[in-house]
Amino acid sequence: MERLFEINPWKLTSNKLEKNKRLQESLTSIGNGYMGLRGNFEEGYSKDTHIGTYIAGVWFPDKTKVGWWKIGYPDYFGKVINATNFIPVDVYINDHKLDLSKDQIDQFVLELDMKQGILTRSFIWEKNDLRVAFRFTRFVSASVKELAVVNIKVQVIKGNAQLSLIPFMDGNVVNEDSNYQESFWDEINKGSSPYPFLTTRTKENPFGTEQFTVTTMMGNQIKGIRKQREQIKSMYVDEQFHGSLSVGEEVELTKFISVITSRDVSDQDHIEKASQVIELAIANGWEGVLHDHKEEWDDRWNNADVIITGDDASQQGIRFNIFQLFSTYYGEDPRLNVGPKGFTGEKYGGATYWDTEACILPMYLSVTNEETFKQLLVYRHNQLDEAYVNAKKQGLEGALYPMVTFTGIECHNEWEITFEEIHRNAAIAHGIFNYTTYTGNESYLLKQGIDILVGISRFWANRVHYSESNKQYMIHGVTGPNEYENNVSNNWYTNTMAAWCLDYTRETVDKIGEDKWVELGLSNPEIENWREISQNMYRPISEELDVFIQHDTFLDKELRTVDTLEPTERPINQNWSWDKILRSPFIKQADVLQGLYFLNHMFTREEKERNFNFYEPMTVHESSLSPLVHSILASELGKTDKAFEMYERTARLDLDNYNNDTEDGLHITSMSGGWLSIVHGFAGMRTYTKELTFTPYCPDHWQGYEFKLNYRGRLLKVKVNHQLVEFYLEKGDPLNMVVFNRTVTLKEYHSVPINKRNAEDLL
Amino acid sequence: MERLFEINPWKLTSNKLEKNKRLQESLTSIGNGYMGLRGNFEEGYSKDTHIGTYIAGVWFPDKTKVGWWKIGYPDYFGKVINATNFIPVDVYINDHKLDLSKDQIDQFVLELDMKQGILTRSFIWEKNDLRVAFRFTRFVSASVKELAVVNIKVQVIKGNAQLSLIPFMDGNVVNEDSNYQESFWDEINKGSSPYPFLTTRTKENPFGTEQFTVTTMMGNQIKGIRKQREQIKSMYVDEQFHGSLSVGEEVELTKFISVITSRDVSDQDHIEKASQVIELAIANGWEGVLHDHKEEWDDRWNNADVIITGDDASQQGIRFNIFQLFSTYYGEDPRLNVGPKGFTGEKYGGATYWDTEACILPMYLSVTNEETFKQLLVYRHNQLDEAYVNAKKQGLEGALYPMVTFTGIECHNEWEITFEEIHRNAAIAHGIFNYTTYTGNESYLLKQGIDILVGISRFWANRVHYSESNKQYMIHGVTGPNEYENNVSNNWYTNTMAAWCLDYTRETVDKIGEDKWVELGLSNPEIENWREISQNMYRPISEELDVFIQHDTFLDKELRTVDTLEPTERPINQNWSWDKILRSPFIKQADVLQGLYFLNHMFTREEKERNFNFYEPMTVHESSLSPLVHSILASELGKTDKAFEMYERTARLDLDNYNNDTEDGLHITSMSGGWLSIVHGFAGMRTYTKELTFTPYCPDHWQGYEFKLNYRGRLLKVKVNHQLVEFYLEKGDPLNMVVFNRTVTLKEYHSVPINKRNAEDLL
Repeated sequence: MERLFEINPWKLTSNKLEKNKRLQESLTSIGNGYMGLRGNFEEGYSKDTHIGTYIAGVWFPDKTKVGWWKIGYPDYFGKVINATNFIPVDVYINDHKLDLSKDQIDQFVLELDMKQGILTRSFIWEKNDLRVAFRFTRFVSASVKELAVVNIKVQVIKGNAQLSLIPFMDGNVVNEDSNYQESFWDEINKGSSPYPFLTTRTKENPFGTEQFTVTTMMGNQIKGIRKQREQIKSMYVDEQFHGSLSVGEEVELTKFISVITSRDVSDQDHIEKASQVIELAIANGWEGVLHDHKEEWDDRWNNADVIITGDDASQQGIRFNIFQLFSTYYGEDPRLNVGPKGFTGEKYGGATYWDTEACILPMYLSVTNEETFKQLLVYRHNQLDEAYVNAKKQGLEGALYPMVTFTGIECHNEWEITFEEIHRNAAIAHGIFNYTTYTGNESYLLKQGIDILVGISRFWANRVHYSESNKQYMIHGVTGPNEYENNVSNNWYTNTMAAWCLDYTRETVDKIGEDKWVELGLSNPEIENWREISQNMYRPISEELDVFIQHDTFLDKELRTVDTLEPTERPINQNWSWDKILRSPFIKQADVLQGLYFLNHMFTREEKERNFNFYEPMTVHESSLSPLVHSILASELGKTDKAFEMYERTARLDLDNYNNDTEDGLHITSMSGGWLSIVHGFAGMRTYTKELTFTPYCPDHWQGYEFKLNYRGRLLKVKVNHQLVEFYLEKGDPLNMVVFNRTVTLKEYHSVPINKRNAEDLL
Repeated sequence: MERLFEINPWKLTSNKLEKNKRLQESLTSIGNGYMGLRGNFEEGYSKDTHIGTYIAGVWFPDKTKVGWWKIGYPDYFGKVINATNFIPVDVYINDHKLDLSKDQIDQFVLELDMKQGILTRSFIWEKNDLRVAFRFTRFVSASVKELAVVNIKVQVIKGNAQLSLIPFMDGNVVNEDSNYQESFWDEINKGSSPYPFLTTRTKENPFGTEQFTVTTMMGNQIKGIRKQREQIKSMYVDEQFHGSLSVGEEVELTKFISVITSRDVSDQDHIEKASQVIELAIANGWEGVLHDHKEEWDDRWNNADVIITGDDASQQGIRFNIFQLFSTYYGEDPRLNVGPKGFTGEKYGGATYWDTEACILPMYLSVTNEETFKQLLVYRHNQLDEAYVNAKKQGLEGALYPMVTFTGIECHNEWEITFEEIHRNAAIAHGIFNYTTYTGNESYLLKQGIDILVGISRFWANRVHYSESNKQYMIHGVTGPNEYENNVSNNWYTNTMAAWCLDYTRETVDKIGEDKWVELGLSNPEIENWREISQNMYRPISEELDVFIQHDTFLDKELRTVDTLEPTERPINQNWSWDKILRSPFIKQADVLQGLYFLNHMFTREEKERNFNFYEPMTVHESSLSPLVHSILASELGKTDKAFEMYERTARLDLDNYNNDTEDGLHITSMSGGWLSIVHGFAGMRTYTKELTFTPYCPDHWQGYEFKLNYRGRLLKVKVNHQLVEFYLEKGDPLNMVVFNRTVTLKEYHSVPINKRNAEDLL
């Protein structure tokens, strides 16, 4: 555990220039869904740093690295790529280049304001008898997506100084994780009129994927000194301001940056569009654009804030999660999704994982509006054709959604993941189920969702085989959610979810019209085949232990619990050989339990309890997706200590650098874990059945908590303490809910005591 | 099937300049165990060609390619590397550079003489009124390992010509399979005195493995024209000869090449040693060195030739196999082994596979002498420490021999092979068993072999786990010989061979002295533990089908036989996705049957028959190691058609380009397949029990066959036709043998009729 920032409900604040600069940079990343960047210093930093500027949807198909290529392996490894670095401003004081890695400074404060989405940094620079105060402020606009702004204030406190400020844009950027040390960009255009700009384009590639053109333009407003010259060289454009300052004199530079890409604007219109953004920003002024930006964040928080009383660390954690999620994705563009590192790093590659359906959608359903969260479904529907291509590459029918992708085409490069971790297909279907049950609106399901469900069911129907020796359908050669086992037979989760997909599709096709049947080429024999497979799907169960078996030979292992491991052995993925991990009983993340979470309504409390008691003690939670599932199930089962332990692991994962890898970037897709642990876990919210239900309690460590819910056109506030749960209807029509198994009607306000009797009614 | 060369018992002859030049180059490769090269043309070739010159034991640790590195993955991918190209002789006729890819030629003959180990090429070059005859002859000396010789005769047949001959050495060579397009060599030295030479060294590498220095020197003898100049430039040294020729005049150039490496000679002595080799060769002269070379080949053939009557294609095939094997390895150096491509290509990387014990040793035991074949065992003993390192890298005890290696350290880069295909350990132990039963001499076993056996047994004892639910020992997470399944549980072959290793080690430790017990740190509890594991090893068996089960869930598959595949689907590894292959029942190579072959004496005929009948129809034989095992078992089971079909697949695999991949190089390690199919298969030779036994028959396609055997100090000739098997004792003491279950004594000659009664006695 490594905590860089002070505990504060709304802010990350630090007075230290950290040794682990990369970790600090990751945690101070900002973004607006369209673009974002790590917390790099504007003036540069000559020691270890990871400069990262990323634009959503702009990617490159790097060559794959595989030991020995075989048919069905993906052609390329799609990567989020470092784009033109647009924040730099070189600073010279009397010809000395400002560099905090070497210079003497005083009163350093670095602060990320999560309420307003603003990163500030201030310090006093000292050398001999000279003292100069600096204040850097920046944000990526939440109201104008193409706009980022850097504001620098410099004041001489003691002595006189020559000051140069050189805002520039730098296209000489590389990806640290490039497989073959190749550059991904070519320079296309650059100039200084109407404003300094640089246009770059991703290189031609042998896979024929889309190339992206990106134009970065800056409009600099200066007060206190004057422009002296400008410089244009390879992949670099600057403006240079210079002047003399006496004690007390102040300089202010505002760098308005616009970033335009070929994803939205055709190449020939880039300069015009980029200039418009700059001009509007200049007209609006620093204070104006800042105001608009803050207002947008106010709106978001108003719909989504979670308040925790009695535990500021938890409070800070949950807000950091929400802040970073909204900085990564707010549903503006159905071609985008929630990448594992967002705009905070480049590890993992790809933009979209099954994390979206497993973790992101369930939270976004409640904290954003329909226009936002529905984009996540539209994204998958738009990539249905590519899912058919993925299946065909394996010689299979139907639709196979990718494990990792930008375009819908699989782009990861380990066979044991790529075409074995096929359970992701079920998560896509479950996302549709989740959306439909939450909103109560079946129109998406019946018009678009069914296309996906049919594609997925056709995949399962082709991917299973009939085992003559067992007279049942089986699924061999899979990797379940537990990636610490590969290429297993009959993963209970995969088989169970596949059967569920077939059933859900069958239920749904009963509701669609004749036209849709024809369009989808459905026939009764096909549906009958799905029923036959689902009803005769093999699902390994141990009679003796009365648990579901993770996969065919799991119980043959040498079973041990995590508490038999030495602390020096953990995390096992940093200390054990892959051979030992694969053969061990240790589980990376919820596997059988993931099924009990997804299909929570289909299993008894006893089934959940027995399986939780059997599997959780063997689970090392070395995936960021693991704790939230266990926290929610633990809450449901009354294991409140375990629930809180798991909550803490997910909510402050990055702030406390639990997994010792946050320097590579934040764990964006699991950022919803804290929220889900509170709302689905502590508050016990469920929406799978017809009514919104709650079984709330307050963790011992807290005095209380409250959260907001967008639910079917309403805005609810839910407040929970140790005695009482209170519901406030802030917007919308009255609502029937089920609280502790009893139906209540919420008009404006309703409260239910939390007591033993209520809780026991559930058992 | 693609046959480039005419059928001829002792030669490969062709009058065609092939379009598939790479295939022709592979098939005309020559070598002498120390070095070798592909059949590249001396004068160069401007169209597609794969220039390859290789020196045994000279390798480079290329960076691995893996999707995501995990603990236990190998650090590097060791590769056979292309070394200084030493055969080139540029030829100019009236300033026209000779290039057969463009020039007009007549009477082209390319011939590899397998009896003498000589490659010749002749043609008449024509342009306008000029006709010039060329004859190139070359060999890599079988008597002086550091020596290669090229002889060129040129005669003007019509017209007058200016002729230039420019013999040179070229260090600007690359590996086509370099993972990162990196060069592996630096130039160290070059010069023209006392003879032109070039010294190169493999680059420094981050893995700290040995760097190799190689000096290549040439001494050119010329008749008919004169030296004009010489040229030395980067990685290049030549001598240039020039003169005018009138009609009928002849020129002869002999290029003596010596190749010295830091493996044998310290760097500062390279020039001296290289010069000595050249001087001796020059003193001996072209005819002299050629004579010595031929004599050595005569000796080899005298011990190893196989004669087949009635089928010249088979005859040519078996001789090609023996020729290429002896060109690759004749046991001069215990640091060397038999690489998968020998000196004929660079695919696969590594020098040593389990092929050595599975295929090479069983043949070398019979066709070479003890000094030669014992080196293969010494090699493994010398690498025992590294085997312990390999195990330790996986967090395991004992010795894990590598799947692919140069030094004993694992150097392949697919986890599913590297640390899952651990059955190779059993093959190493089986090699010791094979050697000991064949020679009848236990001294190696008891002094050195036991070190290996103990290391291997310690590995197995640690690698198994006790399955509480089954009350048996199991081995999870393996890949069996059938590489079309990965990461399976309880591969019957692996479990059976592991138990056999433990038993064989226990038997052996009973025979060693107290000192060795102490040296090896043995204790009775350890031996008792091995017994406990072996006796309680789980070996999957189907009661219902009465067969051994390939691995735990094999019978749950959708079982189909190969004849249900469409021809267009085969080979499946070029037509099916890896996903489909892994889940299919199709078997790449003998798996259960490999066990019945290795432990042939431990299973009943009925067991062999049932398992052969069950598994062979599902086997696609897409490994070159597969047909020989099936041919031998089929012979044993009286399935003579199947035995011959499998023989043909192995014996002319490369000559007929069965697998359509010989252009990358020859399948060296499976070259013993033809010989083993004849001797262990058709002749039914066994040596596992105390006596040499035979159960011979002659395939219908042949009139007869004969082969030689070195056996315990004797040289036997065995002749088989449809009526009779005849034994000739060519050297050594009289011998008791078992022929058709009856003991006979061979003094000088003995014959046994082959008839129904004899054959039935075996059942």
